[in-house]
Amino acid sequence: MSQAWADMKLGDPRKAFLVPEGGKVKLTEEGADELKIFPKGGKSDGEQLFLEILQKIKAQQKVLYAQGKHRVLVIIQAMDTGGKDGCVKSVFSTVDPAGISVKSFKKPNEEDLAHDFLWRVHPHVPGNGEITVFNRSHYEDIIAVRVKKLYDDSVWKRRYRHVIEFERMLAEEGTTILKIFLHISKAEQKRRLEARLKNPAKHWKFHPDDLADRERWECFQNAYEDLIERTSTEHAPWYVIPADRKWFRNLAVAQLFSETLQDLDLTFPKVSWDAEEIRISD
Amino acid sequence: MSQAWADMKLGDPRKAFLVPEGGKVKLTEEGADELKIFPKGGKSDGEQLFLEILQKIKAQQKVLYAQGKHRVLVIIQAMDTGGKDGCVKSVFSTVDPAGISVKSFKKPNEEDLAHDFLWRVHPHVPGNGEITVFNRSHYEDIIAVRVKKLYDDSVWKRRYRHVIEFERMLAEEGTTILKIFLHISKAEQKRRLEARLKNPAKHWKFHPDDLADRERWECFQNAYEDLIERTSTEHAPWYVIPADRKWFRNLAVAQLFSETLQDLDLTFPKVSWDAEEIRISD
Repeated sequence: MSQAWADMKLGDPRKAFLVPEGGKVKLTEEGADELKIFPKGGKSDGEQLFLEILQKIKAQQKVLYAQGKHRVLVIIQAMDTGGKDGCVKSVFSTVDPAGISVKSFKKPNEEDLAHDFLWRVHPHVPGNGEITVFNRSHYEDIIAVRVKKLYDDSVWKRRYRHVIEFERMLAEEGTTILKIFLHISKAEQKRRLEARLKNPAKHWKFHPDDLADRERWECFQNAYEDLIERTSTEHAPWYVIPADRKWFRNLAVAQLFSETLQDLDLTFPKVSWDAEEIRISD
Repeated sequence: MSQAWADMKLGDPRKAFLVPEGGKVKLTEEGADELKIFPKGGKSDGEQLFLEILQKIKAQQKVLYAQGKHRVLVIIQAMDTGGKDGCVKSVFSTVDPAGISVKSFKKPNEEDLAHDFLWRVHPHVPGNGEITVFNRSHYEDIIAVRVKKLYDDSVWKRRYRHVIEFERMLAEEGTTILKIFLHISKAEQKRRLEARLKNPAKHWKFHPDDLADRERWECFQNAYEDLIERTSTEHAPWYVIPADRKWFRNLAVAQLFSETLQDLDLTFPKVSWDAEEIRISD
């Protein structure tokens, strides 16, 4: 399969899934299954194309690392079973681990809570030549705090500004930020939770708390819509990826990531010597 | 000497030295020697009063630590020989080291420079019950970058917004921020640099770079005036302390710090048991 073929068939995910600054979001059941950028492709075509894009990402990451100039931060959020772990594993774990790191954020511990909510996040942002993927992030400190009413409403409300300005600072200092919401339907979540219960090897991924969160599905969806609308900015845009079909989710995220890297001026660094003139002694 | 006597004689440093949000600053030679809050007191009275205030600070810090609620960040900036180290030693090093920490920021290293300028700062902000003193700070990333023209002007200009919003986030999340500029005159700096050169035990504090910075005295003063005017906010105000006389500087900073602690609702935490009812077995 040639790159030309791939380009022909696959739409631009940065147009199809972008929530523009000031734009509106409606998280619908149907929206979780739309195949916007690959409407006529089937699963097997999609999987083949995905592998091709992965090769491209590997090559891009190699240059990004050697160049040591750009910093790339990918933030992934989703409901339980939304596919965060699967997406991280499929798309980002095939790349050279020297240049990419994944940081998963669990519930904040006592020391975290003794500080501002960005305190535990900031040390993990990428440096020059690095890609960092946040599996959950500072956005939990808005979403979970709001839906579970952990603090007074004024806390999560003012955090919108805090994250926007934090990300603006990162972006203006040289970080490319990509925020991804994996959008699944309530029906798909039911199937995935049932699958976890049926398979003892997946029991460790199930928590009874997940059911309490599922009871508040509408609250979470509303909170996410509000969050995405208010914090999608030019310097750190949100993309809503239909994620009911795992193969399509992986394809879309990989292509989105690759296109983002494509826009950076990735070139191997210039060296100060002339390879023609260097002789290696016997 | 009684507390009543102290209160009578000493003016309020939070009025005398505050640069209000939107206010103007002029760093003059004479301003470095004004004894605003203690106009009639002499050095020996001032030193005695200072010791009394230190005892008060010790008591306040003890409650702050036990209460584990408030976070206090003190940021100290000054020209070379301005008295940062001396002030930290005199005012802040007499307190229980379990509850106070001093973080000195030197020139950023290679790893620091591979990240945004707040990356190396953020991990050191105080947690609940803690006081942290920054000896130099993220403000060097504006001042030094500007005066020494380390990067394009656009970099330090946009950092005004970055620090304002960073400090807003810290403040809204529960941190009390106090920013202190120790203001010395150019004539006093000359005396202090000469004293360093005369005394071999002080040679380690002298760097030839200090002279290059002295050559740019006006540039630095202008940059500091601009900085203080633009980044003094209600949530993180700047105070300009006349610092030509060391005893007065210590007195003023100690009183400023103590008054700031005074405004927090410092109380020992309530316990869940009744001391009257508890019997210790023999």
